[in-house]
Amino acid sequence: MRIAVVGLGLIGGSIALGLAGRHQVRGYDLDEGTRRAARSRGLDVADAMADVLPADAVVVATPLAAIVPTLEELVPRCGEAILIEVGSLKSAVAAFAERAPQSSRIVGLHPMAGSTASGLGAADPAIFQGRRFIVVPTARSDERATAIANDLARELGGSITLCSPELHDRAIAVVSALPLATAVALARIVGEAVPLPLDAVAGPGIRDATRLASTPTDLALALLRAPGLAEHLASLREALTDIEDALGDDATLRALLDGSSARRPT
Amino acid sequence: MRIAVVGLGLIGGSIALGLAGRHQVRGYDLDEGTRRAARSRGLDVADAMADVLPADAVVVATPLAAIVPTLEELVPRCGEAILIEVGSLKSAVAAFAERAPQSSRIVGLHPMAGSTASGLGAADPAIFQGRRFIVVPTARSDERATAIANDLARELGGSITLCSPELHDRAIAVVSALPLATAVALARIVGEAVPLPLDAVAGPGIRDATRLASTPTDLALALLRAPGLAEHLASLREALTDIEDALGDDATLRALLDGSSARRPT
Repeated sequence: MRIAVVGLGLIGGSIALGLAGRHQVRGYDLDEGTRRAARSRGLDVADAMADVLPADAVVVATPLAAIVPTLEELVPRCGEAILIEVGSLKSAVAAFAERAPQSSRIVGLHPMAGSTASGLGAADPAIFQGRRFIVVPTARSDERATAIANDLARELGGSITLCSPELHDRAIAVVSALPLATAVALARIVGEAVPLPLDAVAGPGIRDATRLASTPTDLALALLRAPGLAEHLASLREALTDIEDALGDDATLRALLDGSSARRPT
Repeated sequence: MRIAVVGLGLIGGSIALGLAGRHQVRGYDLDEGTRRAARSRGLDVADAMADVLPADAVVVATPLAAIVPTLEELVPRCGEAILIEVGSLKSAVAAFAERAPQSSRIVGLHPMAGSTASGLGAADPAIFQGRRFIVVPTARSDERATAIANDLARELGGSITLCSPELHDRAIAVVSALPLATAVALARIVGEAVPLPLDAVAGPGIRDATRLASTPTDLALALLRAPGLAEHLASLREALTDIEDALGDDATLRALLDGSSARRPT
């Protein structure tokens, strides 16, 4: 297939690099330095977005805020190309698809392979190995569009979860936005409360627990708009209160510990 | 040196394996299966604790609750051996050292290399590479005892932070107990609130953020006794409220994000 990738950051760059062996891949990025760097990594790169066309599929991997504007630009020009956007939240694209021309083909794909790294420099197709890709059909998805999104995800080494935009965004509020907000709050307390230089005492536990606080700011701001986050934050505060109330009561703490451990993603 | 290691779990086993090349190391574990497994990994293992003696240093790497009883047993029998305990909290050992015979030599060492794994099966000297070891002198530490603890930490690949038992435990409350409690609370909310099978949507972010919820229960219960944890939990709840209050206000959120990211351990 002829696959265009618009936006050659961490995700778009990794997708382009991962598919370049199997498909005829052509990339584009708004930033000239990124285009140059992408060429030096062996990618075929166009100097204008229009020049990635014609294509059988266009992967839109811009920052979240630019996805709908990019789709708007592509829809009238892309012919029969399937537009696959890989943003972290799907409701805006779902709304755009509702009003897009009947002939357009738009499907959401969300590789659960994020990292606090960003940019083409960190791009590496290996980030997708063994990861879930959430396929999110829109009002402008047909069987072929969804099948192509599935195929690309599998070719990148991932497995598939299919769900609606609404369910997707509610899940992301819990698995991405809530841990992000928690890491931000935790990093703040740790920075304020440790009675020693932090690097003198920090082990892998606190590093992992606060890692998401280093999410690039624009992505973090976008994720913090996930629906229902305020309620999850309130629930988390209650769960913390439960632990606080149980301190000194090992039987209750043990029940809380055993219950939580069983609920972790494996 | 002749180095004895009492308790051959994740930490004791890793220390024994890491030092066996350079020193004459002899281990002991209460559990017969662990002794057998340690022998099959090439360690010299005694069938009774008394048989690890005589030694120049005894590393006490039992579960936290057994450290003081083990030290009590060793002190009258260990001659001039330096007793080095590697527990996660130090106040009980500090109190014991105050009342221990003047001739005894007791020093605390805390490798910040924990993991949610446990047991000899997970033991691997590589867990110490590049990690901080907190050296915690007691009322029964002299220069030689502290120097030997330093040397062993460096031989294991670590670097040294020196601090008092009181400061150590206050720091651990923040860098170990608080993230543990947070992970437990977060895992509970995530388990309750995700509208999809968790493994269908979980990526590395939520896995890392909840990893500490899988801390072995007895270690978790011990860590949750760290001093000041209740206040840190209250501060964390306030920090979460600040984020909740700022949702929708990108300027305030941006300030919170930038401030937290700067405070992470690097």
